[in-house]
Amino acid sequence: MIIDCHGHYTTAPKALETWRNQQIAGIENPGAKPRLSDLRISDDELRETIQANQLRLMQERGSDLTIFSPRASFMAHHIGDFEVSATWSAICNELCYRVSQLFPDHFIPAAMLPQSPGVAPKTCIPELVKCVEQYGNVGINLNPDPSGGHWNSPPLPDRHWYPIYEKMVEYDIPAMIHVSTSCNACFHTTGAHYLNADTTAFMQCLTSDLFKDFPNLRFIIPHGGGAVPYHWGRFRGLAQELKKPLLKDHLLNNIFFDTCVYHQSGIDLLTKVIPVDNILFASEMIGAVRGIDPETGHYYDDTKRYIEASTIVVGDDRHKIYERNARRVFPRLDKALKIKGR
Amino acid sequence: MIIDCHGHYTTAPKALETWRNQQIAGIENPGAKPRLSDLRISDDELRETIQANQLRLMQERGSDLTIFSPRASFMAHHIGDFEVSATWSAICNELCYRVSQLFPDHFIPAAMLPQSPGVAPKTCIPELVKCVEQYGNVGINLNPDPSGGHWNSPPLPDRHWYPIYEKMVEYDIPAMIHVSTSCNACFHTTGAHYLNADTTAFMQCLTSDLFKDFPNLRFIIPHGGGAVPYHWGRFRGLAQELKKPLLKDHLLNNIFFDTCVYHQSGIDLLTKVIPVDNILFASEMIGAVRGIDPETGHYYDDTKRYIEASTIVVGDDRHKIYERNARRVFPRLDKALKIKGR
Repeated sequence: MIIDCHGHYTTAPKALETWRNQQIAGIENPGAKPRLSDLRISDDELRETIQANQLRLMQERGSDLTIFSPRASFMAHHIGDFEVSATWSAICNELCYRVSQLFPDHFIPAAMLPQSPGVAPKTCIPELVKCVEQYGNVGINLNPDPSGGHWNSPPLPDRHWYPIYEKMVEYDIPAMIHVSTSCNACFHTTGAHYLNADTTAFMQCLTSDLFKDFPNLRFIIPHGGGAVPYHWGRFRGLAQELKKPLLKDHLLNNIFFDTCVYHQSGIDLLTKVIPVDNILFASEMIGAVRGIDPETGHYYDDTKRYIEASTIVVGDDRHKIYERNARRVFPRLDKALKIKGR
Repeated sequence: MIIDCHGHYTTAPKALETWRNQQIAGIENPGAKPRLSDLRISDDELRETIQANQLRLMQERGSDLTIFSPRASFMAHHIGDFEVSATWSAICNELCYRVSQLFPDHFIPAAMLPQSPGVAPKTCIPELVKCVEQYGNVGINLNPDPSGGHWNSPPLPDRHWYPIYEKMVEYDIPAMIHVSTSCNACFHTTGAHYLNADTTAFMQCLTSDLFKDFPNLRFIIPHGGGAVPYHWGRFRGLAQELKKPLLKDHLLNNIFFDTCVYHQSGIDLLTKVIPVDNILFASEMIGAVRGIDPETGHYYDDTKRYIEASTIVVGDDRHKIYERNARRVFPRLDKALKIKGR
């Protein structure tokens, strides 16, 4: 089985965006604030957006199951207050849940959280609980910078975040560390902010002893780990300067990288440098890079092709990246699959 | 000849740091403000710090000439106001100039600028002029985030920065885009902020048409380009989405990467993905990563070893990375060398 651990509902019906725009307008002008019941999206509409897009590409490319979360750039935790984020998260998570119910063999949900700048992370727990217990979510997306590019929350190892981690450990779910839209003009969202956040999160963990406090906490750092594998020597050397253990002992029991790296040389580096047990297959399809690479004639984000063409990842290692690591890092996914005999 | 285009005076005599600490104390307490004449560093002291450190390692490793600028993490443009930065820059640039006079065959200076958050970049011009005309500087370091991790200056393609670019073009000098210490707790200076800035700067250029306005402007993006080469497919794809030309036409006449990547796989990726004409040899020695890699038994930052061991960079390409590209990107360096018959 091929599990894509990083998919977002980027193709949701237009009505969702319209509703969100009304919600945003309602922040300044309460009269414009939409009701929850104003948003009506039928199962047929959901089916259509999935069948024509993600599911079609999954079938064309040959992946089986996607861990599916709300569109990352639309989380926009910096907009409005906690109540705005809470309502918006509930809507987005419900849609992903409905997709998972409509296509139970192909999608399983991961939740966005109702984070809001300056608001204590424990306020996210009720939505997290609902998503795990009622919607069968197998993981969460945690935004280390809910300000959207101003980076004024404490670093991930700070106790500020511990209530989330305690719940993650209780449920045995991992978090993908994923920022949202940048509202800082310096950072292009998908070309800078996403990758910077990946590198930043890794280095925050490196300088800390977070995983001594939470030996079972698991983070997936998306987009191939940002700059981390390319600079693996730098990070090994920095850990050494800081008198930390070897990275494999210090971080690699808890940190995993996805394969959202959109060219062969990048995937080759990732798989050469990072132990195979720490790599999870993913494409972030349909996401930031939707075009066809003129150098190959294939979609940039068809990451399965790079794994298939790899001379580094062969045999059993391929199976680990495609399936076994995801089942290990997402135990609730494994359990859900086993119940179905998969 | 082997030219290292990225060296900082990280080993300056202790008196420099002491003076700086007094200067910082003087911001709050004007009575503590030191005079320029309080800083006394003899030629012998300069010689000693260089001979025992950078020059020794250059000779051991086999590089000939370093483009030498003030310690990047000590620029700390976020501290104090313009006057504080101006005094500090003048001191640091003078020391690098003196080193270049003491060891004219081995060091040639590049300048830090007296940037200060919220202050117009044109205020840096007098220091830049002095460094080029009187000190023989062949390049500058430009900090895209003088706030030190708050990223509240306009992006590099903004007209805000144009006065610097106009002077750079007039003098035909390149800028290394290099941030300084992070005072944002989210960003580790050398493990996150530096690499993030590299990625950010590249993406700022990608989304703009800066090099249409300045066809002869040249930026060196250090630390192997941050996350850029590892995500080259992503950047090619993003340029395509944005209807920009191919990166080789859009950016690679103006943007160059150094080889400060501290492991073989990273250098191999860099040299495989980025055209050889856009890669300049560098080590940033003695810098962020000073240890010996237990996997190789050699210094992490002995980047020449990775080039020597490369099966990708061979023959004339090696000569380009070691020397010819630096002479092309730093024409004033080339001129200074030719005057000496080198």
